[in-house]
Amino acid sequence: MADMLLKVEPAREFCSRAFEAAGLPRADAALVTDNLIQADLRGLGSHGISRVLVYVNRLRGGWVNTRPNVRILHEKPGLLHLDGDNGMGAVVGACAMDMCIEKAAAAGSATCSVQKANHFGIAWFYTQRAVARDMVGVAASNNPPNMAPWGGITPMIGTNPFSLAVPAARHRPMVLDMSSSIVARGRINVAEIENKPIPLGWAIDRKGKPTTDAVEALKGSVLPFGQHKGYGIALMVDVFCGALSGAAFSNHVGQLWGNTQSVQDIGLYFFVMDAGATIGAAAFKARIDQLIDELKACEPAEGFKEVLVPGEIEFSNEAVNAKRGIAIGPGVLRDLNSLKKDYRIDMNLEAHISGAAG
Amino acid sequence: MADMLLKVEPAREFCSRAFEAAGLPRADAALVTDNLIQADLRGLGSHGISRVLVYVNRLRGGWVNTRPNVRILHEKPGLLHLDGDNGMGAVVGACAMDMCIEKAAAAGSATCSVQKANHFGIAWFYTQRAVARDMVGVAASNNPPNMAPWGGITPMIGTNPFSLAVPAARHRPMVLDMSSSIVARGRINVAEIENKPIPLGWAIDRKGKPTTDAVEALKGSVLPFGQHKGYGIALMVDVFCGALSGAAFSNHVGQLWGNTQSVQDIGLYFFVMDAGATIGAAAFKARIDQLIDELKACEPAEGFKEVLVPGEIEFSNEAVNAKRGIAIGPGVLRDLNSLKKDYRIDMNLEAHISGAAG
Repeated sequence: MADMLLKVEPAREFCSRAFEAAGLPRADAALVTDNLIQADLRGLGSHGISRVLVYVNRLRGGWVNTRPNVRILHEKPGLLHLDGDNGMGAVVGACAMDMCIEKAAAAGSATCSVQKANHFGIAWFYTQRAVARDMVGVAASNNPPNMAPWGGITPMIGTNPFSLAVPAARHRPMVLDMSSSIVARGRINVAEIENKPIPLGWAIDRKGKPTTDAVEALKGSVLPFGQHKGYGIALMVDVFCGALSGAAFSNHVGQLWGNTQSVQDIGLYFFVMDAGATIGAAAFKARIDQLIDELKACEPAEGFKEVLVPGEIEFSNEAVNAKRGIAIGPGVLRDLNSLKKDYRIDMNLEAHISGAAG
Repeated sequence: MADMLLKVEPAREFCSRAFEAAGLPRADAALVTDNLIQADLRGLGSHGISRVLVYVNRLRGGWVNTRPNVRILHEKPGLLHLDGDNGMGAVVGACAMDMCIEKAAAAGSATCSVQKANHFGIAWFYTQRAVARDMVGVAASNNPPNMAPWGGITPMIGTNPFSLAVPAARHRPMVLDMSSSIVARGRINVAEIENKPIPLGWAIDRKGKPTTDAVEALKGSVLPFGQHKGYGIALMVDVFCGALSGAAFSNHVGQLWGNTQSVQDIGLYFFVMDAGATIGAAAFKARIDQLIDELKACEPAEGFKEVLVPGEIEFSNEAVNAKRGIAIGPGVLRDLNSLKKDYRIDMNLEAHISGAAG
């Protein structure tokens, strides 16, 4: 890769200042920035600071509410139904997850459905809040229609990302954090920004033909993972996030990219379960440690060096990238510098950029 | 297919009598039978009456408790933790799901973890109970280790099946009901009973090589669906069902087949959410109708006749098979006739069998 490496703390400061300049309160600017920086640290650059410009454009266009009043529509001992008041996804999502955690602490488990939210970034950003409390967390979001249903050619559903995360004791948490497509659509967005081709099999064009052209792919459809089974899962994520919450669903969700002049009305879904209410947190975490140990001891198949557990690669990336810096391409740097100019941010990003990544 | 067709009602009566003869109370015998018959009706013969013999063998071997006392270990407003007392999976599971539904009716949503259960058949058998109450249901089970983790060759995890089901108004419910493997392992069991080969890509042998031999495949590993993503989902099903409930997990779950002289200690997981507690059941069902209408109107891709929604094929199968009968092979008929002899069941199955299926 010919990517450059941008140091983490300057990147964080720059993005925070850009979001504040675009109207977010300081704490919310820091939260949204943390969501993006975490993605970069974990090696998920498609969900990292490559999104700052599109997020800022949504804010300055007035399509996202900078001062949302997240309010409870319905509440029961094990359930919350929230209106996100069109706030930033990370802001609404973190608030919803924290409320869900408190419910679960009292009721043993709780579910939280959110309407009127926006793009919420990596789903692990939310499940980690449950894991930090020794709880099991689920977070999911529907997304604009970018994926064809299995057997169809029209983009009808989102690449609907979700995370399931569980705490361990000796080991890092076990973290599933994935999209319902073969690859996250953000990776095609990055290929477009950087003007690069995509591998065959990721997407189809508008006529349903396989393509390696990122621009054509973005006009067409990403493909679901695991064929009909992944399609079914993507659909259920949409039902839980969109249909159940009263948010937009299927092809009615507003687009994030392309300076779309509309709100997204994304639906979010959170679930938290307190392991302390069943076998006890310590016993549960010991079992997850054991499970990880046993999987790691498994004989690898031909072509594999080792068996990996969900989240393992991302935690390794975090450790490396925290020291080394965040990999960005020239397209992302150009986007950041345009924001620097627009908002007169007094920082020289180039001074914090070093050689090529990986 | 050269399969024969067995009429539904005689099949039901025969199986019920066999289970009663093996020690189950009449109501439980009917429930377990209904679980199997439903699978056959839905075209999932691998989970149908082809399992009667192995179930009966577990009962007569004393490896399953015919009179379980399902008891609550822990209880909170949104959570149940149950001990299944080694009862039949369908008996314990239906009881657990019904308790979970009552909790959800009061708390808005509820979760139920069960330890010490047994093979629970098709997961839709449980989610349909929630759907019948206009609720959203999730049911999952871990399974004996028959699947290698992605990148490994040792069977470490089960093909961990799960169902998510949601009610509709004009349409049939939307039902995801799947295993975490490319195909349910039961289909390989049926191929073995019927002495048939399996397609390449379903499984690997003990050395990690792809195989078409059902016997070798059963000694080796089924492969997860959707590569690393499906592996991650299978693992999370195991965590929710096994690790969280105190049941056996990963390769510690007892086998069902092969006259294994041990209990299974399978873990079950149920989740129910009351759509009435968010946007209201009627509004929710109208949205699911709309979603189904829109998906069905989607232009099909090359090689596809139409876009299908999850559960659609199975509901069509049900309508056809209810009239036509259940497709069974000579191996299954041989198993049933051995039970007829053992338990002196006064029924002539052959009198209820007609021509070839499909």
